[in-house]
Amino acid sequence: MATLLHIDSSVFPAEASASRSVTAAFRRTWEEQHPEGTVIYRDLAAVPVPHITADAWSAGYADPSERSTRQSAAFAARLELIEELERADVILIGAPMYNYTVPSTLKAWLDSVLLLGRTAGEAPSAQGTPTVVVASRGGSYAPGTPREDFEFVQNYLEAVLRSTLGLDLEFIVPELTMAPRNPAMSELLPLFESSRERAHSEAVTKAKELTERLTADNGR
Amino acid sequence: MATLLHIDSSVFPAEASASRSVTAAFRRTWEEQHPEGTVIYRDLAAVPVPHITADAWSAGYADPSERSTRQSAAFAARLELIEELERADVILIGAPMYNYTVPSTLKAWLDSVLLLGRTAGEAPSAQGTPTVVVASRGGSYAPGTPREDFEFVQNYLEAVLRSTLGLDLEFIVPELTMAPRNPAMSELLPLFESSRERAHSEAVTKAKELTERLTADNGR
Repeated sequence: MATLLHIDSSVFPAEASASRSVTAAFRRTWEEQHPEGTVIYRDLAAVPVPHITADAWSAGYADPSERSTRQSAAFAARLELIEELERADVILIGAPMYNYTVPSTLKAWLDSVLLLGRTAGEAPSAQGTPTVVVASRGGSYAPGTPREDFEFVQNYLEAVLRSTLGLDLEFIVPELTMAPRNPAMSELLPLFESSRERAHSEAVTKAKELTERLTADNGR
Repeated sequence: MATLLHIDSSVFPAEASASRSVTAAFRRTWEEQHPEGTVIYRDLAAVPVPHITADAWSAGYADPSERSTRQSAAFAARLELIEELERADVILIGAPMYNYTVPSTLKAWLDSVLLLGRTAGEAPSAQGTPTVVVASRGGSYAPGTPREDFEFVQNYLEAVLRSTLGLDLEFIVPELTMAPRNPAMSELLPLFESSRERAHSEAVTKAKELTERLTADNGR
């Protein structure tokens, strides 16, 4: 009974969102492979989780018996998200680039789930969980491009998801997604098209690979 | 009649927040120098601005006469923040590091004020505005330290505030702020103390310098 934690954070609806269309392709394939599986879905644009607060933060480091009522309530909301992360066999995150980094809703989710001594620290509780991030972006920020120094999605998520939460992180990067809407980018349309096709095919391939890996792990 | 735009985003109250205590020192000095001045204050922790939405985003690029009711409402909220930015002679931002980057509330504010063709693009509307960011952080992420690659506050704000909005950006960096609360950091207490003192004195000095600069500019 495998569990997929699927998080989307694009503000745009499925048909207009590069990240949502790729996470959907991954999820469809995963569901085909796991007809009995469970999907935990968080649409952070539709239902944002709260920004971290002083109560939610300090509760994470307080003795449970000494938490105030407000700290307990704030921590319960964090705990729900933390337990979803810990329950997942595979994590799938749609992380479009907005103004060079992740959406504010995704940062709010990260601030809730990062907890030193539990999800972070010496023995992160979700360590090693296979995680696929769909890091879509309007232009290209690949190494060697003029905008490479403006890339704060992959670089940042490497720091928090891999180095801090210990997740086994892979990226799918559909890029130049603004090309169809920006006349100045019309010459880049073919590159956009091939990036989109590659992203969709990577989503399907990775979903199948992770299924095989989970099956092999369970069969040990 | 000088105008200061003062933004705080720490979740902690004044007495427990390194960034708030330094922005307060800057503001006090600035107010002493400008008894007739105006301060626009945004406490993003107390009253967060909305996360960007599809309506708010697309409204920024739509012909005003063709905006839907929802687009118009969402854009009006962005416009209020944009006009505050444009009205400011000096901008002061408290930007504590949470999980290696800015608070989600500050990212939400940035997503509202960054608008290509107005605040960003070829002639950014707030270009050149002197801006002081108090980038407080629990540890040290200075060049040469083990954690320098985890610094996504100054690096990120360089990209959005300086390179995109065109602001004339300076940082004040009170660091090692976790030292008084973390026994493992007790040896770093003297460094924390000197960093705090330096930050407060820089806040006072910069507030005075910017006053002189504004006066000189107005006297031209």
